[in-house]
Amino acid sequence: MRSPQFIRNGETPPRIPAAPNFHSTVSLQKLRRFNLLILLLRVATFCFSLSAALFMATNFRSGPAKWVHFDAFRFVLAANGIVAVYSFFEMAASVWEILKGSTPLPEVVQLWFDFGHDQGFAYLLLSANAAGTAETRNLRGGDTCAADNAFCIQSAISVALGFAGFVFLALASLLSGFRVACFIITGSRFHL
Amino acid sequence: MRSPQFIRNGETPPRIPAAPNFHSTVSLQKLRRFNLLILLLRVATFCFSLSAALFMATNFRSGPAKWVHFDAFRFVLAANGIVAVYSFFEMAASVWEILKGSTPLPEVVQLWFDFGHDQGFAYLLLSANAAGTAETRNLRGGDTCAADNAFCIQSAISVALGFAGFVFLALASLLSGFRVACFIITGSRFHL
Repeated sequence: MRSPQFIRNGETPPRIPAAPNFHSTVSLQKLRRFNLLILLLRVATFCFSLSAALFMATNFRSGPAKWVHFDAFRFVLAANGIVAVYSFFEMAASVWEILKGSTPLPEVVQLWFDFGHDQGFAYLLLSANAAGTAETRNLRGGDTCAADNAFCIQSAISVALGFAGFVFLALASLLSGFRVACFIITGSRFHL
Repeated sequence: MRSPQFIRNGETPPRIPAAPNFHSTVSLQKLRRFNLLILLLRVATFCFSLSAALFMATNFRSGPAKWVHFDAFRFVLAANGIVAVYSFFEMAASVWEILKGSTPLPEVVQLWFDFGHDQGFAYLLLSANAAGTAETRNLRGGDTCAADNAFCIQSAISVALGFAGFVFLALASLLSGFRVACFIITGSRFHL
């Protein structure tokens, strides 16, 4: 895209109002708030998906029923685990960006990486949780829950935590999508 | 954004690139292609979700099993039906926009309406299909499928069609999200 040098050398007045690395105090404050909001969403996603994964992974002690015997519950555990790991790294990237002012990967790669994974993993997590809900509802009337009610309750809690994680991940994907669009339209990830 | 005219005319380039309703031939062609792409995605979503809904709704003739007895299948039918109706109206709005050059609703309302519904209904459709998949997999080993295999096959086809509808709706939501971002950043729904 257009580099700052190109504008500085020009004889005619710049077309972009200001050089990309120049931000007013108000803009910097807005940018800081935007980055903090993203970090907050990452932390929330991490907490919820990690606890959902842990709740599901420990869901075998109460009786004969085990999560590993149910496809949908394995899917719930896998999806929440993947999202927890991803959110952890995204948290680190977000902290890096707040502290250093630049992205860990090259800007264009980082933006598309974030948005692509946010959107993809949001869909993954939602489908896992929906499948988990269907399985939980299915079990409720059957013998499994009659024999081992704690198993069913713990599964339901895990799925509910997964849905909370999904909500925060979907919000994060809106913000990272906005950053990609900013980059496509203005050549910078900031809309200031 | 910057139109070609702006560059040709300017001795001192204006800050506001061009009048909002003025587009060059190249830009108009790009715009037309973008709108046609959206229309194409709407048509594909409509076809797939309508056929998924019809496949599920007629899934009671082969034997004793009926879709209405399964929560997940009712969800699949409802979600696909809603998306089919929505896509039909969005198709009409898209044709209107291509023919008249303006949106049926005021621009800002239309953009947010499109994006919000696209994103929301994409999540709705995905969760319905995931729940339907879990139910289908569940039934496969049981008595229902042994007694009435055609029922299980037709359910699976309906869910698969629903997933195809979801893919096109998710793509449409990317495009309508981009239009919203354009509108927020540049004040116009076109990025030219």
